[in-house]
Amino acid sequence: MCELLAMSANVPTDICFSFTGLMQRGGNTGPHKDGWGITFYEGKGCRSFKDPEPSAHSRIAELVTDYPIKSESVICHIRQANSGAVCLENTHPFIRQMWGRNWTYAHNGQLKAFTEELPVKAHVPVGTTDSEHAFCWILDQLHYKFGAERPETETLYRFIALSARKINSLGVFNLILTDGEYLFAFCSNNIHWITRKAPFGEAKLIDAEVVVDFKQETTIDDVVTVIATQPLTNNEQWHKMVPEQWHLFYKGKTVLKGDTEQGA
Amino acid sequence: MCELLAMSANVPTDICFSFTGLMQRGGNTGPHKDGWGITFYEGKGCRSFKDPEPSAHSRIAELVTDYPIKSESVICHIRQANSGAVCLENTHPFIRQMWGRNWTYAHNGQLKAFTEELPVKAHVPVGTTDSEHAFCWILDQLHYKFGAERPETETLYRFIALSARKINSLGVFNLILTDGEYLFAFCSNNIHWITRKAPFGEAKLIDAEVVVDFKQETTIDDVVTVIATQPLTNNEQWHKMVPEQWHLFYKGKTVLKGDTEQGA
Repeated sequence: MCELLAMSANVPTDICFSFTGLMQRGGNTGPHKDGWGITFYEGKGCRSFKDPEPSAHSRIAELVTDYPIKSESVICHIRQANSGAVCLENTHPFIRQMWGRNWTYAHNGQLKAFTEELPVKAHVPVGTTDSEHAFCWILDQLHYKFGAERPETETLYRFIALSARKINSLGVFNLILTDGEYLFAFCSNNIHWITRKAPFGEAKLIDAEVVVDFKQETTIDDVVTVIATQPLTNNEQWHKMVPEQWHLFYKGKTVLKGDTEQGA
Repeated sequence: MCELLAMSANVPTDICFSFTGLMQRGGNTGPHKDGWGITFYEGKGCRSFKDPEPSAHSRIAELVTDYPIKSESVICHIRQANSGAVCLENTHPFIRQMWGRNWTYAHNGQLKAFTEELPVKAHVPVGTTDSEHAFCWILDQLHYKFGAERPETETLYRFIALSARKINSLGVFNLILTDGEYLFAFCSNNIHWITRKAPFGEAKLIDAEVVVDFKQETTIDDVVTVIATQPLTNNEQWHKMVPEQWHLFYKGKTVLKGDTEQGA
């Protein structure tokens, strides 16, 4: 499978600490050695670093670990290939434009019969993964449902949640998706999240000998949520999402959520 | 204005030498200090490095200079802002998907009345530059003209050349555009190109104390074309394109070209 990492914050924040832990799982403490990628938003703009090489041994990952890019929204993915060859066009995150925003998407899981069940037309995949195909299908659905105008936020994300549930019926579909402003997470079987805010404390990585004291790094108003497939620290309380639960984060806080019982 | 750099090659080739020269013009030997970006293709996949910081002092540019990514198609841009603020969403190259390919675009020049003269609908800009707006307009034109199917190559690029001429009538529009396979260059007033092939010789950068002996770096079958706003070396013969001339390169060679007299 793969591992996901995302961040939503109310102030531009670097993700060096969390990324330091995650990248070790790409060929060192974990088996996700089939490429990695990370996308940082700065306003509406975003930039990505991608490498089909294992993150634990990637010079580009080393730069990202060491170079604090301040961002309010980040999406990151390390890959263990199960659908589609190991190559750059199959490396997450995937970015496409809609309604004048950059949409960034990463998926963990595996889908069956996706080409038959999720026909795409307006948005055509470049690579061969189930993941990118499902992203194109979501964008097609948004395009057909809402046309040229972005609907209001609750309508939009409840529809995205419905689309995610449909895709999830084809297998395992843990999803993180952002337009740089909102961050959407859908749990198929494995997503954890934590919100850090005052009073800040120390955090200790599981995958590397690194401890950070967030008190030294933050102000009292900072709110930062980190989402990951598996917890990245072992001295903090992470929330585990339940299957088909979803959260919409905005500036570090949950602003909308749902699960199976409530309907999406 | 800005400076453009592109490469088309018949074997995966690194662009470290040319990039080393160009990056100096971003705040050192040239005034193009308002950000830079470079996109490398590996097959259908591509990855970009972007920075709103001056390239001459960018740690990411330092990595790119020093880390030989082998690619058959590259597009690079260093920016001196004239339309749109200095920020990440206004930093070239711009990448969008069409017909299952990643299309990468960079522009040098300035356009007047572009919002009125180049209405966009299906492809909406994220940032505020004339450049990205013109890219969206080209994609809209392709979408309306050809729909869901890519036409054959000559039809496609003659139509793109016509679109470029229309945009050029609004000001200055030097363009480089690639889908990773073909590389299209349109000259408004300033584009140079050079094809390097056997027998290879030495090349000496204008902007840095660097000499490379391509004989040591190549095989006899390699064909590599480099396109740049201004020549990057001072001991080789660069071709200067004339206004409204365009070239389509494929694996380092010109496969189609046109100019005003011939019609696009």
